[in-house]
Amino acid sequence: MAVYTDVSDEALAQFLTLYDIGTLVSCKGIAEGVENSNYLLGTDQGNFILTLYEKRVDTDDLPFFLGLMDHLAAKDLACPVPIHDRSGKALNTLEGRPAAIISFLNGMWAKNPHTEQCIMVGAALAEFHDKGEDFTIRRANALNQPAWKPLFAQSATRADEVQIGLRSAIETELDYLAANWPQNLPGGVIHADLFPDNVFFLGGTFSGMIDFYFACNDMLAYDLAICLNAWCFEKDNAFNITKGRALIEGYQSVRPLSADELAALPVLARGAAMRFFLTRLHDWIRVPPGALVVPKNPLEYVKKLRFHQQVETASAYGIDL
Amino acid sequence: MAVYTDVSDEALAQFLTLYDIGTLVSCKGIAEGVENSNYLLGTDQGNFILTLYEKRVDTDDLPFFLGLMDHLAAKDLACPVPIHDRSGKALNTLEGRPAAIISFLNGMWAKNPHTEQCIMVGAALAEFHDKGEDFTIRRANALNQPAWKPLFAQSATRADEVQIGLRSAIETELDYLAANWPQNLPGGVIHADLFPDNVFFLGGTFSGMIDFYFACNDMLAYDLAICLNAWCFEKDNAFNITKGRALIEGYQSVRPLSADELAALPVLARGAAMRFFLTRLHDWIRVPPGALVVPKNPLEYVKKLRFHQQVETASAYGIDL
Repeated sequence: MAVYTDVSDEALAQFLTLYDIGTLVSCKGIAEGVENSNYLLGTDQGNFILTLYEKRVDTDDLPFFLGLMDHLAAKDLACPVPIHDRSGKALNTLEGRPAAIISFLNGMWAKNPHTEQCIMVGAALAEFHDKGEDFTIRRANALNQPAWKPLFAQSATRADEVQIGLRSAIETELDYLAANWPQNLPGGVIHADLFPDNVFFLGGTFSGMIDFYFACNDMLAYDLAICLNAWCFEKDNAFNITKGRALIEGYQSVRPLSADELAALPVLARGAAMRFFLTRLHDWIRVPPGALVVPKNPLEYVKKLRFHQQVETASAYGIDL
Repeated sequence: MAVYTDVSDEALAQFLTLYDIGTLVSCKGIAEGVENSNYLLGTDQGNFILTLYEKRVDTDDLPFFLGLMDHLAAKDLACPVPIHDRSGKALNTLEGRPAAIISFLNGMWAKNPHTEQCIMVGAALAEFHDKGEDFTIRRANALNQPAWKPLFAQSATRADEVQIGLRSAIETELDYLAANWPQNLPGGVIHADLFPDNVFFLGGTFSGMIDFYFACNDMLAYDLAICLNAWCFEKDNAFNITKGRALIEGYQSVRPLSADELAALPVLARGAAMRFFLTRLHDWIRVPPGALVVPKNPLEYVKKLRFHQQVETASAYGIDL
């Protein structure tokens, strides 16, 4: 939940004169998103999202994020689209922060995703990959495999506070990943954060995906591995093979995986679990005592990692090889 | 900012079958309100607010709050109205909490209220007092003058951590208020929390008031004194006599104050400052170290109290006596 920057009436009124979105009738801070401040604007033309980009977002990346949304929406991917101002700009400044107005996407995210939703999100991810193929701006993945060892080094000495033996187990796994990370799989623009809260459904069908602020260039199958972790484990951290099969078959209904991609899926899933474990560990051990906002538990991703360590082939994810 | 209770898809869908408000198309947690969880629901009939009442709200008070909104809206006071379900009930249960759906009120609150807005809020407060007169349910003010000494006793030993000498100064003031608190002024239903974030404006006019969850029975002029503190001081805690005059004249344009009420305004303003100082102090010294949500500074209300202590008559608030 997040509203970091307060917006004054005067500043908002001035900002909105830049746009042709009608007369403002309401403005409410939204308790969603952890990186930016988000407001729901109501005007006589409908609802819009106002996003102020906070310090954790690199301003240089904004043309990539906003341009990607424009690119995907132009190809009819269901996603929000930046509203361009009267002069054609998608990015302006409000209360000293970079700010954009984004179209409002109807739908709700699935708090307990079911199998049919896993099929739909798989297909939507593949559609995202296909439609992002000719997007020309590039953005390196700041959280790619080579970044994991230095990231863990910032927290390693305190890892055993979370679980005895964790430091050693993670260091062993980081060595394994460095030695076995795939190098020549098909790449492109990946969403990199397509968790259930970033996917909307409406009336039983996929209505769109949001939050492109981790998008970057990396291996496409790695994005599927992120979704495998985010969508196909139950609350008790048990893998649901039915959902795994649904996700992968949904993906392949749009973009079939190569034999190399299928073979790499177990190591990609281990890497994806590592990546989210590492950022959660980083935030977990840095939370101020007594903080009202509790960060996500990193052990959830240790349990997912341990599942993937037992996996020999993608057949464990429900795929007939 | 507040969303304390997560609502599952299934529970929300089940809950909404009770109501005739159309098909749900969006649901977003709102970063407003400190006592309850609030969601903005979008349906094909428009926007609604879903409120889940959290532990700080006494369930026994809910018929008063919801009934008051019904009562005021029926008399055309601009305020949200509870949506009654198909069986006529305004209150149901969602995720184990009492929950209600409230109509959506267009408008924005004034972060830097100007004089014209003080006139409008004064008139709206008087209209609220007039229209609440024949509301039959009663609710005692849990934070009335007799409650202040016991409330301060919970924090007194730590008051000097906030400002040296504060404990003694507050104890002296509490004695003054006990000895001088008015007893026979006109009473009725007061809002008791009509701060700027609870008053909406749209297109230069008052569009409505919200958040009746502190409403109770007490002296009407005390409610005006609360607004004097909330609306007529600048950011540097200097009293703005132009705004004070505007607020009181706006009030009197609808409900003229009696000579007794005008004479009591300075002590009522001291009491109103004390009441908000005390709850802020209570929260301030109990905040966990490092908490991400910083409570409001109690010293703001000490400064307001000191201003009112110098006031001899209501002429200091801009009124010609």
